[in-house]
Amino acid sequence: MDPLDTLRHIRVVLSRPSHPGNIGAAARAMKTMGFADLALVAPRHFPDPDATAMAAGAADVLANARVCATLDAALADCIVAVGFSARKRELSHGVEPLRASAPAILASAQEGKVALVFGNETSGLSNEELAKCQRFVAVPTNPDYASLNLAAAVQVACYELATAADAFDAPRGAARRAATVADLEGLFAHLESSAVACGFLDPARPGRFMERMRRFFARAGAEREEVKLFRGLLAAFEKRLKRR
Amino acid sequence: MDPLDTLRHIRVVLSRPSHPGNIGAAARAMKTMGFADLALVAPRHFPDPDATAMAAGAADVLANARVCATLDAALADCIVAVGFSARKRELSHGVEPLRASAPAILASAQEGKVALVFGNETSGLSNEELAKCQRFVAVPTNPDYASLNLAAAVQVACYELATAADAFDAPRGAARRAATVADLEGLFAHLESSAVACGFLDPARPGRFMERMRRFFARAGAEREEVKLFRGLLAAFEKRLKRR
Repeated sequence: MDPLDTLRHIRVVLSRPSHPGNIGAAARAMKTMGFADLALVAPRHFPDPDATAMAAGAADVLANARVCATLDAALADCIVAVGFSARKRELSHGVEPLRASAPAILASAQEGKVALVFGNETSGLSNEELAKCQRFVAVPTNPDYASLNLAAAVQVACYELATAADAFDAPRGAARRAATVADLEGLFAHLESSAVACGFLDPARPGRFMERMRRFFARAGAEREEVKLFRGLLAAFEKRLKRR
Repeated sequence: MDPLDTLRHIRVVLSRPSHPGNIGAAARAMKTMGFADLALVAPRHFPDPDATAMAAGAADVLANARVCATLDAALADCIVAVGFSARKRELSHGVEPLRASAPAILASAQEGKVALVFGNETSGLSNEELAKCQRFVAVPTNPDYASLNLAAAVQVACYELATAADAFDAPRGAARRAATVADLEGLFAHLESSAVACGFLDPARPGRFMERMRRFFARAGAEREEVKLFRGLLAAFEKRLKRR
């Protein structure tokens, strides 16, 4: 299945969100990572101008969001519900770290709808809400301050799943044209002769100068264009030296 | 080096941020992932009540933030500056996807200070700002809507680095006590005899009932306590059957 289709099988469910700004920010977070299916369970305020403002260019995700009276309704057509929880729970179910859980969540999303369930900003998911979930995932956080904002948690979850699915390429810079060995050997010969010509390098006692230069250029991974610039600079120095 | 010490060598630099709320949200994002070193280059408004409100429990990160007049000043003691960019650039330098860049960034942070540099909300990093950076990283995003909020980008970058550094454990549920083979064989024998006793299973034509049950329990990864519950239920059924 195409990775983008897999992501489209994943629903983000916000249960009892208090702040409409977080709903909008969550919609934006989803869309940047290729997610589109948002369900809101008993939101305190929705629709709301704060939600719209924070959604920025993800107004379509908000417009298509389903508002449900109960978590059961939001999950009815899902084959797996994944409860996100930061707190230690008295569950015998294991809580998986987000990264480790991603492959199994994506595999389920190839079989049917999967819900990522996030609780209220203050209280998180209740035990009743967690009891509706089949997997339990936590984002590993600083034990001294584990308070991920709701939209930030949605952002991290969507990033992790989109990255694990290899859904998007990173933008690329212009193509590199790496220098060849012949380009570099030409540069090294030129550098050595120039260094001798200007009196910096004594051919009788060359020390490790050329070895260090070779190591530096190897590490830098020079491009053809850069080799040309260095050789142009050396040629200009030599020309001046001859004039004097 | 301890992963937490490595993260403490990484500075988040926000260059020319327009919205103080984003500064606060970035500080919160950093602290949840174990980061503490924040530098602000020419912020439009700082300090500001919106920054304080959005920082929530990360007031210490804000209080310790360095305000710099120039990007040079914010980077002076860093050995590597990593420019975050969403846009395609006319750079011959390659832009790395965030996940692929994490090991090298962490390796640098073990040698000295490393800066993660984020540009203005609207315009991103200018060419002049990018020219001060040695690495270029992008968060792979939906090409139809790549507009990560500034604090969301900081959250994702800090999450990726903290996770790559394996800095924090996920919270765990209560320990599982998995059922042994003997527990399960006891259950299967009990299940079979009960199924025969109630007339559901014909011992002469058992079909694949027990095979399906074995497969189901194997997949579920049953716990001792769950096996006890099933056996208790079966015993109660059998008791009733005998009374009739």
